[in-house]
Amino acid sequence: MKIAIVGLGVIGGSFALALKEKGYTEVFGIDTDEQTITQAKKMKIICDGSADGKEFLSKMDLILLSIYPKLVSSFLNQNKKQFKQGTIITDTTGVKGAILNDVLEALPEGVDFIFGHPMAGREKKGLSYASSTVFQGANYILTPTIYNKAENLDQIERLMLEIGFGRVKRITPSFHDEMISFTSQLPHAMAVALINSDKEGRDTGSFIGDSYRDLTRIANMNDALWAELFLENKENLLHSIENFQKELNVIKFALIKEDTESLKQCFRKSTARREKLDQQ
Amino acid sequence: MKIAIVGLGVIGGSFALALKEKGYTEVFGIDTDEQTITQAKKMKIICDGSADGKEFLSKMDLILLSIYPKLVSSFLNQNKKQFKQGTIITDTTGVKGAILNDVLEALPEGVDFIFGHPMAGREKKGLSYASSTVFQGANYILTPTIYNKAENLDQIERLMLEIGFGRVKRITPSFHDEMISFTSQLPHAMAVALINSDKEGRDTGSFIGDSYRDLTRIANMNDALWAELFLENKENLLHSIENFQKELNVIKFALIKEDTESLKQCFRKSTARREKLDQQ
Repeated sequence: MKIAIVGLGVIGGSFALALKEKGYTEVFGIDTDEQTITQAKKMKIICDGSADGKEFLSKMDLILLSIYPKLVSSFLNQNKKQFKQGTIITDTTGVKGAILNDVLEALPEGVDFIFGHPMAGREKKGLSYASSTVFQGANYILTPTIYNKAENLDQIERLMLEIGFGRVKRITPSFHDEMISFTSQLPHAMAVALINSDKEGRDTGSFIGDSYRDLTRIANMNDALWAELFLENKENLLHSIENFQKELNVIKFALIKEDTESLKQCFRKSTARREKLDQQ
Repeated sequence: MKIAIVGLGVIGGSFALALKEKGYTEVFGIDTDEQTITQAKKMKIICDGSADGKEFLSKMDLILLSIYPKLVSSFLNQNKKQFKQGTIITDTTGVKGAILNDVLEALPEGVDFIFGHPMAGREKKGLSYASSTVFQGANYILTPTIYNKAENLDQIERLMLEIGFGRVKRITPSFHDEMISFTSQLPHAMAVALINSDKEGRDTGSFIGDSYRDLTRIANMNDALWAELFLENKENLLHSIENFQKELNVIKFALIKEDTESLKQCFRKSTARREKLDQQ
């Protein structure tokens, strides 16, 4: 199978590494950064690569896009005459509703676009931080459309399980965006707000345990990508932030009222939910 | 050196394990739970133990208390006639201001109480979850009083570094409580509020990445202990929660106004701060 990866950043690079380890040798790379292409060739994770892929794009069986959300439909528009009939294109975008219509409009006949989202990543950007282990056991989400062929959805699902993902779920684009606002975007907003609320000039690093370290790890983020993801999922994210604010206020008001029993109730609820999560 | 550990829960047990690995053989245990004493003897982390330590308490050079905050002065009051002259007592309590006066009042002449706080722990309670590695490289805080002997402070500092802590800092009790409300209690409140704000009946576990897993890990907590810690540091914690709420609202309002630049500014600030933290 001939596979092109578009965008050899930390995610695209991790796919290339994972594919290489599973014996895929016909993996091509497209990246506008020349140095990245050179680096990927040196790492032997692509057999060929260029800024636009003109030389090989028409031969691909699968094209995997790991580029910023807004670039997905641009890529389709720029290359719609290059795709061979029957090609599968899949993306790794963290929002679905915002790109769905543009993608479907830009899609030429005979090409199947499978919307996908690997629930794994790293805090750093760029190929140098790519890792073949980051996907191991992670969740993968597919958001099928009525246009997708069943066998193509199955093929992407098999491929993701083969390269190490632990679980592939199929849900609607709107449920995806609702869930992701809660499980991914809200935690990022919290991590940012936590570290930004620290007072200047304190030697905070000397007084932290694992909890602070864990909660702020994802505060190190690609600002352009995440601003885009947040804004493209605005309503869901606002809803998740507000639900979180309500629960934080339950704790805050219990504290103000010195209501020990309410505090304990919050902690017992969170403990039971967290233990359930570990069993899944 | 003869050391008694009072409270062989997850923290006391971890101290016992760490001391054993460093060759301390005269470590005694006090725990009101008979099974815990039996278990600790089987694990060979204590040479003797009982519910009240009456048989050995008067011979101890160091007594390490890992019990609930409110029990610290009770323990001193109950045993004040048992301590030998020159004994050092140290605690592992997560709040200092709330216990300080009671401890100093209960303390008999000739006994030095060194207030300490290991910035490490585990989500589970009980000896079975004790671990000798949990302290490796972690922060330790001492909050000296004017009554402490310099050589005793130094001795505790050396001991903590010897059993694996990476850094020992000395600060005032009030600064300790201020910092801890931010670096430990606020993250716990956030983790609880996050997982409690999840809607019932969603298969959330299928749609999470490492971020949600990391941010909610500490939502699994000992409800009685943490309710006590929160309430005993009420004003500091409320202040930290409010500072955090302000920063979360900066993100929320940028989102409402679709203000990309403000969002990016928040993310760049958090990224810079997180990178600084990793360098410490």
